[in-house]
Amino acid sequence: MPAPKDVYIAVIGAGGVGKCFLSQLEVISKRLSANPASPTLSLILVSRSKMILYSPEYVALPHGDISTKLAASTQEPLPLPKIIDFLAAAPSKVILVDNTSSQDVADQYPQVLSRGISIVTPNKKAFSGSYKLWQDIFAAAASSGAKVYHESSVGAGLPVISTLKDLVDTGDSVTKIEGVFSGTMSFLFNSFAPTEGSGGKWSAEVKKAKELGYTEPDPRDDLNGLDVARKLTILARLAGLQVESPTSFPVQSLIPKELESVGSGDEFLQRLPEFDAQMEETKVAAEKEGKVVRFVGSIDVAKKEVKVGLEKFDRSHPIAALKGSDNIISFYTKRYGANPLIVQGAGAGGEVTAMGVTADLLKVLERLT
Amino acid sequence: MPAPKDVYIAVIGAGGVGKCFLSQLEVISKRLSANPASPTLSLILVSRSKMILYSPEYVALPHGDISTKLAASTQEPLPLPKIIDFLAAAPSKVILVDNTSSQDVADQYPQVLSRGISIVTPNKKAFSGSYKLWQDIFAAAASSGAKVYHESSVGAGLPVISTLKDLVDTGDSVTKIEGVFSGTMSFLFNSFAPTEGSGGKWSAEVKKAKELGYTEPDPRDDLNGLDVARKLTILARLAGLQVESPTSFPVQSLIPKELESVGSGDEFLQRLPEFDAQMEETKVAAEKEGKVVRFVGSIDVAKKEVKVGLEKFDRSHPIAALKGSDNIISFYTKRYGANPLIVQGAGAGGEVTAMGVTADLLKVLERLT
Repeated sequence: MPAPKDVYIAVIGAGGVGKCFLSQLEVISKRLSANPASPTLSLILVSRSKMILYSPEYVALPHGDISTKLAASTQEPLPLPKIIDFLAAAPSKVILVDNTSSQDVADQYPQVLSRGISIVTPNKKAFSGSYKLWQDIFAAAASSGAKVYHESSVGAGLPVISTLKDLVDTGDSVTKIEGVFSGTMSFLFNSFAPTEGSGGKWSAEVKKAKELGYTEPDPRDDLNGLDVARKLTILARLAGLQVESPTSFPVQSLIPKELESVGSGDEFLQRLPEFDAQMEETKVAAEKEGKVVRFVGSIDVAKKEVKVGLEKFDRSHPIAALKGSDNIISFYTKRYGANPLIVQGAGAGGEVTAMGVTADLLKVLERLT
Repeated sequence: MPAPKDVYIAVIGAGGVGKCFLSQLEVISKRLSANPASPTLSLILVSRSKMILYSPEYVALPHGDISTKLAASTQEPLPLPKIIDFLAAAPSKVILVDNTSSQDVADQYPQVLSRGISIVTPNKKAFSGSYKLWQDIFAAAASSGAKVYHESSVGAGLPVISTLKDLVDTGDSVTKIEGVFSGTMSFLFNSFAPTEGSGGKWSAEVKKAKELGYTEPDPRDDLNGLDVARKLTILARLAGLQVESPTSFPVQSLIPKELESVGSGDEFLQRLPEFDAQMEETKVAAEKEGKVVRFVGSIDVAKKEVKVGLEKFDRSHPIAALKGSDNIISFYTKRYGANPLIVQGAGAGGEVTAMGVTADLLKVLERLT
């Protein structure tokens, strides 16, 4: 039998973020095991698409190079409900780390939590799907005492969700949240409409962003604004608004209507130059006011208004002055007054996303043991 | 006997921050008591200089207007060791909230923690005094299991300490921390050397800042740089440097040598114009390079160098573009690469400082119950 302070870890998803997380987990496991007063973390399951590596007897998997061991595993994959059964039967507390972006996994969270299994995850789907799923998740956690932490679902490892929760929990009135929530959009507009110099053609910037790996394989998955809308949904709900879904408020898509249904991302990129004049016009209109255009999300809490799209900003505004693919999130509150509380930095990438997950894991661990 | 999940709260210090904290405590106590699954907070002691209000039987003080009740209290004040004895004998867990800036109280932290009493505080003195006190505090907490949280000791309610801890605890390498850590210095330099326009005379800006309540009663207590040095000491230690004390590294004082020993703050202000030429020269030298001068603190972790003083920044640099009396803190790390993780906003003021304390209280509560 494990010591009472042992905690089991199960990890679903071992892609970009998942791999970084596994190596961070190794670091913190070693540190914790060196301190006799700390709980011991035992990784008992890792799965990825059709592969699984787990210990049916709840014995910790050996340390080191888990991804390679997973790839070489010959264990029969378990469907998700079986994984949940296995974890719920563990002889000590369990934290499930969901490093996927799967809606199917997210839909199981109420079930997972109600069976006493805590969750940490960067998966946006659970918190930005239907409002009912959101309610079910937090109701299940409240009744079982299991924890659910999801810092990396907005702004990766940046302290966005924890900051908003602290503001709300201590009784501040959050009046407005505004920012650049997509690393891809940040990169595109910082290049297309820089505060100094003139920037390139829109279609050329999109092509460059794709080549540099800043976009999804099909850039339309960034340009439709849905990723930003999901993040806004999460923050708006945390601020107290009952947002029904990420499509229940205005979201400006940067995909020209004519290109919405062309077959492939490549074909889309090939035809995008036909629509450069449109974006150029928007940029020039902003320049005439001494401003630059940025793709932002905003939540007006009092008016219960959430929106995502293009806005103009003075060149000296922190949103205009953003660099590279950084995110920026401004919290306007009663206590903070005219100058918002601002958090800024890389909002995407395997290591920083995994960092938010690992930090959440440590927080859940402190609350469970 | 209290239910096992009751937690007692004792508050020392009921001045500016203390009053704001007491009203935030009232808000969270009400919310927690409305939820049967939450622990109950019982405020059992409030003290301020020679006044005390407490319940010898550990019964919660009645809600509402605690400051007024404290002022009207006729209870005999207890010396600090007696207060600690009283709290250590409580029949449930206790959190001591130290809202003073007293070194005497800070010196008792190891004793308080070793007796199982947790601490939340904005008091910088405990964490920026001798390195031995720092070690004793965390050793006492580790051996008793009591918690010690001090978010508001740097940047008030801004998520500075929690962010740095998350970076370090998840295994990132923090390479450099740089920022404006004083609301007073921020206000002074944003007015004296604005990014646009020319700003006023140095002595006039200091006078104005004092009139607006942005400085200590004697402005030299801000201009000597010690407040910033204390904050840097805390962050450097959290980043792993064994900084001996806030005077063990270079700190530039903005008090002209000749005015260090003049009797009063008023006399200091009266004579300060004699030294305007010196500051003007520094400002003009920066302007010639297209830059502005700012009073910053920085920690180079690899070189183990901590320093506080004037530095020049490009006008577009986030440190130069700061507004009002805002703080800005940039964390450069291996994971975040060239663009730092930045936290920015009001770093002083009763409400936002108290917010950091209240948020810490909630975190300790979750870990104790």
